[in-house]
Amino acid sequence: MFENKDNRTELSELGEFGLINHIKESVIIQHKSTLKGIGDDAAVLDAENKKIVVSTDMLVEGVHFDLSYVPLRHLGYKAVSVNLSDIYAMNAEPKQITVSIALSNRFSLEAVEELYSGILLACKNYNVDLVGGDTTSSTSGLVISITAIGYAEEKNIVYRNTAKENQLLVVSGDLGGAYMGLQVLEREKSVFMESPKAQPDLEGNDYILERQLKPEPRADVFRMFKDMKLVPTAMIDVSDGLASEILHLCTQSGVGVELYESKIPLDPQTVDRAMEFSIDPTVAALSGGEDYELLFALDLADYDKVKNNPLVTVIGHFTAQSNGCSLIAKDNSRHELKAQGWNSFK
Amino acid sequence: MFENKDNRTELSELGEFGLINHIKESVIIQHKSTLKGIGDDAAVLDAENKKIVVSTDMLVEGVHFDLSYVPLRHLGYKAVSVNLSDIYAMNAEPKQITVSIALSNRFSLEAVEELYSGILLACKNYNVDLVGGDTTSSTSGLVISITAIGYAEEKNIVYRNTAKENQLLVVSGDLGGAYMGLQVLEREKSVFMESPKAQPDLEGNDYILERQLKPEPRADVFRMFKDMKLVPTAMIDVSDGLASEILHLCTQSGVGVELYESKIPLDPQTVDRAMEFSIDPTVAALSGGEDYELLFALDLADYDKVKNNPLVTVIGHFTAQSNGCSLIAKDNSRHELKAQGWNSFK
Repeated sequence: MFENKDNRTELSELGEFGLINHIKESVIIQHKSTLKGIGDDAAVLDAENKKIVVSTDMLVEGVHFDLSYVPLRHLGYKAVSVNLSDIYAMNAEPKQITVSIALSNRFSLEAVEELYSGILLACKNYNVDLVGGDTTSSTSGLVISITAIGYAEEKNIVYRNTAKENQLLVVSGDLGGAYMGLQVLEREKSVFMESPKAQPDLEGNDYILERQLKPEPRADVFRMFKDMKLVPTAMIDVSDGLASEILHLCTQSGVGVELYESKIPLDPQTVDRAMEFSIDPTVAALSGGEDYELLFALDLADYDKVKNNPLVTVIGHFTAQSNGCSLIAKDNSRHELKAQGWNSFK
Repeated sequence: MFENKDNRTELSELGEFGLINHIKESVIIQHKSTLKGIGDDAAVLDAENKKIVVSTDMLVEGVHFDLSYVPLRHLGYKAVSVNLSDIYAMNAEPKQITVSIALSNRFSLEAVEELYSGILLACKNYNVDLVGGDTTSSTSGLVISITAIGYAEEKNIVYRNTAKENQLLVVSGDLGGAYMGLQVLEREKSVFMESPKAQPDLEGNDYILERQLKPEPRADVFRMFKDMKLVPTAMIDVSDGLASEILHLCTQSGVGVELYESKIPLDPQTVDRAMEFSIDPTVAALSGGEDYELLFALDLADYDKVKNNPLVTVIGHFTAQSNGCSLIAKDNSRHELKAQGWNSFK
């Protein structure tokens, strides 16, 4: 996509307009609803009689990512993924993104190209148009802010505050993997800091590393809902850990929940690595975060549609609010469900 | 709007969700087209059969603003203004914004409230809903990224690439003021750095300081177009200096231009201060930037509608591309028009 990987071209040589033009050349518009992309004061989009769904996220170097082990290409990909995940969590189809980045002069044009190659790969994989943004310098670290725009018919949009008593609690994929991937990366970074000649030992961790470095938003689950004409009654994406997201659904919907520990889907690699790090795999799932799975409520009547579905797992059910929010452990003991999700200000 | 101005509350006490809830309490939704604001995975908006116009800007501490002389409240207001200006430059009506901020722990909750009080004041003044965003910590400075969303009928949207030979070049308001305001602020900062007990001498500079610190996007000009049923043939907002913006219109439209120095609108305070700083006022207008005026092309047939209009000034006309882009100086000499606008990477 971009050429001249071995050179170092200073951003100051190009300036902001040069950089924007350079990026623009690599952008391909896929949707006819994108009436105008990069190149004017604003992008112009056509909602085609649907409602508009807008989400935005900001990723900050040293807070959300560590460039000592996160390749820029993966970072670009992930920055798009996490935004698309929010759009899918509304049961809407993402079609456009804007990307704003602030970067210091330690980044060369080639580094920016790496970042954008990841952004554009995610755009291609998820059929999304890059329609605008901003590029500016930064006095220190890299900051990426992405806004994703999607569309849905009003009757299909799924909110967080509409789960009801007796409905099923369902989650896609498996949980805790991204967190265990992060533990492996942090360990290898510590080893490297102590002896810089050591080779990182990442073997056998492919799955959890990919979960951490290159998460995929659940477009497949969104399409499954569409194909099955299934509309969840409430939905959220799992970005801050399962417990935190379940509590959001419960608080906003005014219901309680019973979550069964034995039902929480875990990949064997997540379990193995958790054992190795002496971390309870359930804790990794409940509090780890960055899984970008979809967590949703379903009418009991839809149970047959999901019970043997490989994409999703029923992990509990909603109760009256007075019952509280409980984790039913493997030994059948009942524990209050608590959020220990991530707080970037701590 | 916010209380307890004298206290210092650490952001880490609230956490991200606490901060979002706190901000949310001050937000009032004004548009029925805002179906869902803050509080879900994404905002839900109704385009009401119009096209969607989306613009985004990122402001970085130490690059775009200096908190040693920019009050946080003004910064919040300006961050919204510059984004709305882009929407008006498409001849569209802004209705929603999302706001993402990254801030270090040197900012207290009260400081964040100051920033948001400016953001919300701009929302109120321009009838715009704050519908979402992201708040996160930063390892160093403050970063603000805003996305503005507006609407227009397709036939009314005005692009940059549609100016034609013989059309008029028109600009709203006056130019160079924000740049001279910045010079005054920088001078007073230098004085303060040398003798911290000195009181800043800002008297007689109200207009240019307001142009720099609290710019107002030209909603009034947008409304005038609507009331007069006037649709410019091309338009851009003046953020990087008049010369740079004129050249964007010319390059993208494939035309040349003749700009008359004598017609460039300047406020007397801008001229006075420019003289004092030994800066040519024309240079301040051409290269200064941050004026957030609207620069547009009009059919000759519409000349009568604007010739005595106090909001706008005809400053030149478009020519064949082969004629190039010229500044006709007050002495009738012809100069090539050059952009010396701002490059944040230098």
